[in-house]
Amino acid sequence: MFDTVAIVGMGLIGGSLGMALRRRGLARRVLGIARRAATLDEARTMAAIDDGSLDPRDAARGDLIVYAAPVLAIPPLVAQAAPALRPGTLVTDVGSTKAALMRDLEPLLPAGVDLVGGHPMAGSERGGVMEAREDLFEGAIYVVTRGARTSPGSVERLAELSRRLGALPVELEAGLHDQAVARISHLPHVAAAALAEAAGEGALPDDLLRLLVAGGFRSTTRIAASPPEMWRDICLTNREAILEALAGYEAALVAFRRALEAADGSGLLEAFARGQECRERLVPRDDGPASA
Amino acid sequence: MFDTVAIVGMGLIGGSLGMALRRRGLARRVLGIARRAATLDEARTMAAIDDGSLDPRDAARGDLIVYAAPVLAIPPLVAQAAPALRPGTLVTDVGSTKAALMRDLEPLLPAGVDLVGGHPMAGSERGGVMEAREDLFEGAIYVVTRGARTSPGSVERLAELSRRLGALPVELEAGLHDQAVARISHLPHVAAAALAEAAGEGALPDDLLRLLVAGGFRSTTRIAASPPEMWRDICLTNREAILEALAGYEAALVAFRRALEAADGSGLLEAFARGQECRERLVPRDDGPASA
Repeated sequence: MFDTVAIVGMGLIGGSLGMALRRRGLARRVLGIARRAATLDEARTMAAIDDGSLDPRDAARGDLIVYAAPVLAIPPLVAQAAPALRPGTLVTDVGSTKAALMRDLEPLLPAGVDLVGGHPMAGSERGGVMEAREDLFEGAIYVVTRGARTSPGSVERLAELSRRLGALPVELEAGLHDQAVARISHLPHVAAAALAEAAGEGALPDDLLRLLVAGGFRSTTRIAASPPEMWRDICLTNREAILEALAGYEAALVAFRRALEAADGSGLLEAFARGQECRERLVPRDDGPASA
Repeated sequence: MFDTVAIVGMGLIGGSLGMALRRRGLARRVLGIARRAATLDEARTMAAIDDGSLDPRDAARGDLIVYAAPVLAIPPLVAQAAPALRPGTLVTDVGSTKAALMRDLEPLLPAGVDLVGGHPMAGSERGGVMEAREDLFEGAIYVVTRGARTSPGSVERLAELSRRLGALPVELEAGLHDQAVARISHLPHVAAAALAEAAGEGALPDDLLRLLVAGGFRSTTRIAASPPEMWRDICLTNREAILEALAGYEAALVAFRRALEAADGSGLLEAFARGQECRERLVPRDDGPASA
C-alpha cells in the first residue's frame, strides 16, 4: 500500500503500527524515528521497524508519515521535517485530540502535502514499544478528520489503511471528535487520577488500603497509570471541551454530596439510578464478568 | 462445621455463599430466605440452597445466620427473627459498612446470641443469585469485626469459615474498616456513577459516544452498573466517611480544573503524576493488560 512509512514516536501505538504494517505487508519498509537509540533497539527487538533514525528530518523519506508522539511534541517534529517533504506525501498522526493539532500543523506543510488527522481508539495505560501488539488496532474505531490541507483521496487512503489494520474507520469533524472524547475518554482519565490521589493521599495507611483494594478500585483507577506527559498534552490541546465535561462531572458529584449531607435516601437512589441508566445506555452489557 | 446455615437474602453474595457451603460440606443444610418465591426457585436452580422460606422468622432455625440483604434491610429482618433465636446462635452479615450496622443490631439480639460483623471483599456489579459462583470468595479478603455482643470464640469461628470458603480473614475495627472502604470502594462507586452520568446526560448524541467508548470509559464506569438500592444503603450507613472521602476527591478535581483553566502544563503534569504514583503504590502492577 505504501513504499516507506515513517513512524515518528516509538511508543505503544507507533510500535504496534510498525508491527502491523510489516506483518500485513502494507509497506515495503517501515522507518522508525525516536529520540533515543535504546527505543529504536527495542523497536527492532519487537520487529516493529526495518530501519531506525534519531533525526526527525528523516521522516521526509516516507510517502506516509505517521506522527505517534505526545500531541504537543508533534508540531515541532513536523516543522523539522517540513522543508524536505515531497508533494504527494501523506501526513497523519494518532493523537487523542484533533482540532488544535490540525490547526497547528496545516501552516507548517509545503504545498502538495496532504494532512489527514487520525485517532485510533486503541491504547492502554501501559505505554512503551515493549507493550506493542500487532493486533492492537483489531476491531478498534479509527477516527479520521479532514482539514484545510486534506485532499479528497487522502481521507480514503487513511481509511483504507485503517481497515487493513483491522480497524473501523469513522470520519468525524475534528471539533465534534474532541468534544465527544472529552466526555468519554479525557474526563475519565482525569477522574481516575483524582480518585487514585484521593485514596492514596488521605490519612489512612497504605497497607490497610492495599488490603481492601478490590475490583472496583482496580478498574476505576486503572487508567490513572497512564503516562502523565501524554495526558498533560491532551488536556492542553482540548482544554475547553474537558473543562465543560469536568463541569458536568462536578455537578453530578455535587448532587451526590448534597444527598449524602441531607441523608436523602431517594436522592441517592436517583443519583445511582441515573449513573446505572447512562452506563447501560452507552456500554453494551457484554463486558464479561469482573469482580467489584 | 455448622448444622443449619440460614442465609437471609439470595443475591450474588448470599447465593454464592450457599453454593460454597454446600459444595465444600461446611453445613449439613443451607436454608435460603428471600422475599420472592421466584428467587428461591433460582437459588434451587443454582444448587445454592437445600431449603427455602419466605419468612424471615425461619432464620432462627440456623445455628449460623448470615444476613446478605442490603444493609438497611438487615435490622428489620433481624428484629423479626430475634424472639425465636436460641442461645449459642452465631449471627453475621456480609454488608459493606460495619459500624452503624453493628450498633443497630446489637440491642435487637437476645442474650447468648453472638454477633460478628463480616464483609467479604468480593462481589460484582452484576447482582442476583443467577450470577452466583461457588468460588466467589476464593482469594478474597474477608473482614470480620467485633462488637459489644461478640464472644471471643465467635470471631474465630467466622474467620475459620471464611478460610474454608477460600478467603483470607482479617479482623478490623468497624470504624476503621468503614473509613478505609469509603476511600477504596464507596467513593469509586460514587465517582463511577457520576462519570457515567456526565457522559450520558450531556448534549452529545448517544450514537457518537457509543462509537467512541473504549477501555477507559468501560473500566472507569463498570461499577456504575451496580444495584442502586444497595449503594443507597451503603451511603446512608457510611455517610461521614464517604463525605470526607468525597471532599478529598473534589479537592483533587479542583486542582485539575485550576490547572486546566490556567493552561498550566506543569500543574497538569504534577496532578497526573500524583494519580499515577498513588495508583502504583496501592495496586500491584500485575493486573494483566487491558486496553484504554
